[in-house]
Amino acid sequence: MNDHRYQTGKNNLEKMNDNGFKRLKKSLDDIAPDLVRFVVEFPYGDIYSRSGLDLKSREIATVAALTALGNAQPQLQSHIEGALNVGCTREEIVEVIIQMAVYAGFPASINGITAAKKVFERLDDGK
Amino acid sequence: MNDHRYQTGKNNLEKMNDNGFKRLKKSLDDIAPDLVRFVVEFPYGDIYSRSGLDLKSREIATVAALTALGNAQPQLQSHIEGALNVGCTREEIVEVIIQMAVYAGFPASINGITAAKKVFERLDDGK
Amino acid sequence: MNDHRYQTGKNNLEKMNDNGFKRLKKSLDDIAPDLVRFVVEFPYGDIYSRSGLDLKSREIATVAALTALGNAQPQLQSHIEGALNVGCTREEIVEVIIQMAVYAGFPASINGITAAKKVFERLDDGK
Amino acid sequence: MNDHRYQTGKNNLEKMNDNGFKRLKKSLDDIAPDLVRFVVEFPYGDIYSRSGLDLKSREIATVAALTALGNAQPQLQSHIEGALNVGCTREEIVEVIIQMAVYAGFPASINGITAAKKVFERLDDGK
Amino acid sequence: MNDHRYQTGKNNLEKMNDNGFKRLKKSLDDIAPDLVRFVVEFPYGDIYSRSGLDLKSREIATVAALTALGNAQPQLQSHIEGALNVGCTREEIVEVIIQMAVYAGFPASINGITAAKKVFERLDDGK
Amino acid sequence: MNDHRYQTGKNNLEKMNDNGFKRLKKSLDDIAPDLVRFVVEFPYGDIYSRSGLDLKSREIATVAALTALGNAQPQLQSHIEGALNVGCTREEIVEVIIQMAVYAGFPASINGITAAKKVFERLDDGK
Repeated sequence: MNDHRYQTGKNNLEKMNDNGFKRLKKSLDDIAPDLVRFVVEFPYGDIYSRSGLDLKSREIATVAALTALGNAQPQLQSHIEGALNVGCTREEIVEVIIQMAVYAGFPASINGITAAKKVFERLDDGK
Repeated sequence: MNDHRYQTGKNNLEKMNDNGFKRLKKSLDDIAPDLVRFVVEFPYGDIYSRSGLDLKSREIATVAALTALGNAQPQLQSHIEGALNVGCTREEIVEVIIQMAVYAGFPASINGITAAKKVFERLDDGK
Repeated sequence: MNDHRYQTGKNNLEKMNDNGFKRLKKSLDDIAPDLVRFVVEFPYGDIYSRSGLDLKSREIATVAALTALGNAQPQLQSHIEGALNVGCTREEIVEVIIQMAVYAGFPASINGITAAKKVFERLDDGK
Repeated sequence: MNDHRYQTGKNNLEKMNDNGFKRLKKSLDDIAPDLVRFVVEFPYGDIYSRSGLDLKSREIATVAALTALGNAQPQLQSHIEGALNVGCTREEIVEVIIQMAVYAGFPASINGITAAKKVFERLDDGK
Repeated sequence: MNDHRYQTGKNNLEKMNDNGFKRLKKSLDDIAPDLVRFVVEFPYGDIYSRSGLDLKSREIATVAALTALGNAQPQLQSHIEGALNVGCTREEIVEVIIQMAVYAGFPASINGITAAKKVFERLDDGK
Repeated sequence: MNDHRYQTGKNNLEKMNDNGFKRLKKSLDDIAPDLVRFVVEFPYGDIYSRSGLDLKSREIATVAALTALGNAQPQLQSHIEGALNVGCTREEIVEVIIQMAVYAGFPASINGITAAKKVFERLDDGK
């Protein structure tokens, strides 16, 4: 019934962070397959497919929010990778995270930069 | 000693949200004038003056983070106004806030939209 | 395309808290109608319709979470009303909220009880 | 003087999650023995002994809150085990955690499911 | 059974913020009298009575935490008053709250200063 | 231009936690050197150099806030070490962290004590 939403989500994930999604699916598919499906359908099918804001701005918003919340390191790393995939430069990502020191404090910003460093190093190592 | 940083901050505030800053200054200048000065010097002098990310993307990041944190309504309203001042459309701001339902939950998103509605109505009323 | 999900969500809202939804819809429909639709489709259409956990337990979980997060008073009040509508007693709701003192601190619990008091008084006044 | 509260707490812990408490006690008893005692006396002695809400509903509330807060993984794992011990099924626990995507965002829900998976695997391995 | 803890708590409240407690009791005694009793017994009876840290330092810690959490304005105002009652100066309280800009961001700090301003004005008005 | 602020910050860091800062600098200097500089200039140059509150009280405030926020373990450990360096006893630090059970819940307090234990053990091992 929701084939269209699922397919739209899959298409967006392929552009944004397909490896991240495959890791998520592999990790959660035996315990909560419907949560995996909801991730495809709602964020990627319903939200990231919306016009009105480009994907690059959407990933800037997500990296900002996850840095500020400070309790979702795996997802922050995934979205830093996603931000690169949709056209953000490393410098732009670092700027977003530094800026969060103002709104969520220096520890959140420092821990966000540490996440970015891990992602950049992983990519440089070709993993 | 920090005249340069303060002046840079003031210049950015004039572009971004001078009325918001004037309200802040009026409200806090008798009790914590140094906090008011720090707001000019650090976020607006040091951070928003940085190259590497345009002001529009910076305000998208801030609106996203404040919506997600959910405990800073006055500042969220100020930055929604700031986002408009640096070139975001109302539609783009609404999109950022809707997207936060994914990362911080529907209540945070709904309360963010309520903040946007207040700002838009205030502007439409010419206040 | 998502008629079924929307209709399922509407049916659940009628059982759970139709007045709360009408207030939300009235408040947000001019600025973010799609967020209103997402509220019907995802939480009420996809989640609250799932088997595997009864609605009473689901509302206990939601009241607990919103009390602990402490930054979503309107939604907490709505779900306290929703919990009553699906069969929770006032005493049970008060117990959930008191228990949150252990996990989120006394201020979150006290502010949660204040929310419950407002809801109970509103209902006793026949509003 | 608080022998009664301590004994009540110990009795509840034996029903709910005695192994979890023993790990806590072993870990903290040399540095903060009074905090360990407070855990027995206040949450388990004063709160979980209250009538007005059954233990199963109490653990659902706690699992929901800890998933939503997202910054207390060890305690979330302990209470997932506690929830099983007082009669929740694995399916019910998974449902509570999936539901938190609505109120605290998908990252909190995904990280909660990861915690549940660790607990279930540990139990299946007979540890 | 817990007369001693309750009496110790009452004595501490009389030193620290008896008016604040009376407001809390008046507000919550009809809906959750046990939560009011727990406030006397656990924070004020068990914790604030502990040796090892003076009351002034304890209130500095509480004002810092409530400013940083940012979702408990009534309790923050009560503890600003409590901090004054156990010997903190207004300047010290303002310094603690400004410092939180570093750890929880400028919005939390600004909203904390606004809370302090309300308390100071109320006291200056003799209320 | 900000030589004075940077030098003041460096001097404070030498008193407070120079090793912690060196670790931070080593970790982030290749990816976000300006964030490292901001840490010296704003928290340590602008804030910790302020009169009006002694350094010991300032570290009590920071340990309290980071324990309550619960999402910044590396920084909490650094500031526990900093608190010791400016004259707090281990007992005082433990008391601050236990007290946070009241304001941020038992999990935050327990995880804070775990952080303190790690710091104390590291120091006892002469690392």
